Amino acid sequence: MEKLVLHEYAPSGNCYKIRLTAALLGVPLERRGYDILKGETRTPDFLAQVNANGRIPVLQIGARQLPESNAACVWLAHGSGLIPVDRFDHADMLRWMFFEQYNHEPNVATLRFWLAFIGEENLTDAQRAQIPARRAGGEAALALMDEHLTGRGYFVGDALTLADIALFAYTHVAGEGDFDLAAYPAVVAWLARVSAAPGFVPLRA
Amino acid sequence: MEKLVLHEYAPSGNCYKIRLTAALLGVPLERRGYDILKGETRTPDFLAQVNANGRIPVLQIGARQLPESNAACVWLAHGSGLIPVDRFDHADMLRWMFFEQYNHEPNVATLRFWLAFIGEENLTDAQRAQIPARRAGGEAALALMDEHLTGRGYFVGDALTLADIALFAYTHVAGEGDFDLAAYPAVVAWLARVSAAPGFVPLRA
Repeated sequence: MEKLVLHEYAPSGNCYKIRLTAALLGVPLERRGYDILKGETRTPDFLAQVNANGRIPVLQIGARQLPESNAACVWLAHGSGLIPVDRFDHADMLRWMFFEQYNHEPNVATLRFWLAFIGEENLTDAQRAQIPARRAGGEAALALMDEHLTGRGYFVGDALTLADIALFAYTHVAGEGDFDLAAYPAVVAWLARVSAAPGFVPLRA
Repeated sequence: MEKLVLHEYAPSGNCYKIRLTAALLGVPLERRGYDILKGETRTPDFLAQVNANGRIPVLQIGARQLPESNAACVWLAHGSGLIPVDRFDHADMLRWMFFEQYNHEPNVATLRFWLAFIGEENLTDAQRAQIPARRAGGEAALALMDEHLTGRGYFVGDALTLADIALFAYTHVAGEGDFDLAAYPAVVAWLARVSAAPGFVPLRA
């Protein structure tokens, strides 16, 4: 296999998704860190050589760069049990991964970043004004997950898939964004189930 | 094949993606409309029977519901030439589809909806305060697309894929959100290329 390099900011849940997928599959990744708080993904070199979108993670596969965390997970998990073969289940896995990027990450991950990394006192007025809407959006995403997981072991079918990995990444640290997961017991039980998967690695490792 | 029903709001670009994919593949879809301006996707019946997330589009496949426009396109295009077989190209197609939902749709589609459907005079103060950031985000997404498309026919490989369909949907009506596509000549040329695909159907049809 070509050499794999993960361009990342280690505390990012989006970067963690890729490390967790690789760990569950037993695939080695070289890691290269960038401090997004210092703008290290907006330098001319990064934009020209890694990602013109100025974002991490990017999975480098040989000489080719693959941005977008969920796309990188799909590349890694190609042909593995983390991606359902069944046509509907395959699309349903992607459905939850798109939900994650549209309804979950912009709310749950953004509030974690603002409150735990930047600090509420350092936010701009425009950011502070968005907190209530992002709080409501995050609670709605968690409530939908809780409803779906009630009576189910995993998001799709009866086994761990990339849908679980994508949603686990920011959900299990939602408390850092002042979300109280105690209100979502099916989510809490599912988090424990994912954490017990053979080969699991924690976010901070 | 099981009967397919598209639960939709016809002017939505996300719904159009699914109709365009089906048309290019020659797959018939039954259409069922909901007026999102009247809250018809937030009724108890809709939430219980179509999508607990209260959103369209949803592709109904027999008795099963598949939300998320890009996931529905993947289901429809299963095994067709609209999805690359090559492992990298397949993931790269998804990369552009996740980019579309994260960087493009929340900016380009939201400004179109606010300005052309709700009307600037009817926006809340919180919405109006977000216009500059969404404008900048939309221009950045269009600029990245233009850079990528310069010297290329399509987003991935050398043929039309779901990445093109996903990004075409809101880009070709970006002018309704007051984006000026004349600044993005490679995007304009690509829009013409997609519109010329055999089986193409327009948004308003």
